[in-house]
Amino acid sequence: MSEQRNIIAEGEEKRVFEGTGEETVQIEFKDDTTAFHGIKRARLKGKGSFNCLTSSILFRLLEEGGIPTHFISYDGGTRMTCRRTEIIPLHVVVRNRMTGSTAELLGREHGERIPNRITELRYKSGDRTVGTPMINDDHAVALGIVTYGELQRIKDMALRIDDIATEAYSSIGVELIDFRIEFGKTRDGEIVLADELSPDNARLWDVETGNSFDKDRFRRDMSDVCASYREVMTRLEGKFGK
Amino acid sequence: MSEQRNIIAEGEEKRVFEGTGEETVQIEFKDDTTAFHGIKRARLKGKGSFNCLTSSILFRLLEEGGIPTHFISYDGGTRMTCRRTEIIPLHVVVRNRMTGSTAELLGREHGERIPNRITELRYKSGDRTVGTPMINDDHAVALGIVTYGELQRIKDMALRIDDIATEAYSSIGVELIDFRIEFGKTRDGEIVLADELSPDNARLWDVETGNSFDKDRFRRDMSDVCASYREVMTRLEGKFGK
Repeated sequence: MSEQRNIIAEGEEKRVFEGTGEETVQIEFKDDTTAFHGIKRARLKGKGSFNCLTSSILFRLLEEGGIPTHFISYDGGTRMTCRRTEIIPLHVVVRNRMTGSTAELLGREHGERIPNRITELRYKSGDRTVGTPMINDDHAVALGIVTYGELQRIKDMALRIDDIATEAYSSIGVELIDFRIEFGKTRDGEIVLADELSPDNARLWDVETGNSFDKDRFRRDMSDVCASYREVMTRLEGKFGK
Repeated sequence: MSEQRNIIAEGEEKRVFEGTGEETVQIEFKDDTTAFHGIKRARLKGKGSFNCLTSSILFRLLEEGGIPTHFISYDGGTRMTCRRTEIIPLHVVVRNRMTGSTAELLGREHGERIPNRITELRYKSGDRTVGTPMINDDHAVALGIVTYGELQRIKDMALRIDDIATEAYSSIGVELIDFRIEFGKTRDGEIVLADELSPDNARLWDVETGNSFDKDRFRRDMSDVCASYREVMTRLEGKFGK
């Protein structure tokens, strides 16, 4: 790990360093954790390395499944090398059950089974008073974020990612309940999966016990947040690690 | 008008009476007006008759344009006869500009021009704590309200309604800025445009002066609410009345 690299960007839970070339960056996963739009905060020792390896394994599986991602290599510890992208300011959410804020919005039970899959878009406005509102395809195009064609591609990819990740998690006894992803555009205009794939942006339930292995443990002040993140990583590594 | 008909349903701004047969109802447009989810209320003398005739003229134009509606006949005064339908619990909104609650949600200017048209769905939950949240296609299907095929048909109809109504309004010097409609299912399963089409569920701007001819006048405590509703009716009647 080169500690002398320049920081390009720093968020709540990640740092982005310059890569070895113009087209790459190195991403560091921090132990810092936030929830409820930054209101709840903590440092969870080890989280950064668990989520970095978990994301690396899943990115590799997705690449093998034909999904273009920003992932290039796992660099050990808390760091991975990725393609440099311009992040598209959308959160794309896929729900395999009725969950979280959407269950609340619609007056339904968290965890209820649904006959279809729900894909949602949220606009990362970057404006505190606007926040991250749920929007539809027409809003995204009206805002100039994407074209209809790009949205179709993004949504198709999101469902294919759900297929592949659901199968991978299922093989280690975990149900993928929902997840939130981000996409970026490379310099040559290709749309690729970016950010991370970990218990920080997914709901993961142990098939045997029904226990949450994800950030809900942190949101709800439950014990063993880190142990759960480590459990997900360990099971994935046991099954898919090199 | 048969005053002895039984009332089947009564809302804030309309009453529904039994029709002459099983398949029909008579709808009465009331002078009562509400805004901000019922917080602001008034009785606007004449509004019922203006909106009944305005809706009748527009429904007829839409039928001529190939859009199935619940409209059968204008019965004079405040009443029209319609096909009996089961209302689909969705508000379908079409915006030709960035407006109202959506402009607020996205942090944009009310009235801003946009490169596309925005179609929105809101779920009429019938539950006070849930209200009428904005949802997307997947939510509507997950809630069991419609199938994807029905949604496609509803959205296609909404845009075609926008085409026809925009052209009609344009011919009388009015810009159709946005509108909210509802659909119903007839007993034989046909999806038809229901409810009403009037300044109560549309934004209508005078092309020459930019003045609002719609419910925004009521929401904003402006003068001449009724005169504006009458103006819209009079212009439409002058151009399209029998």
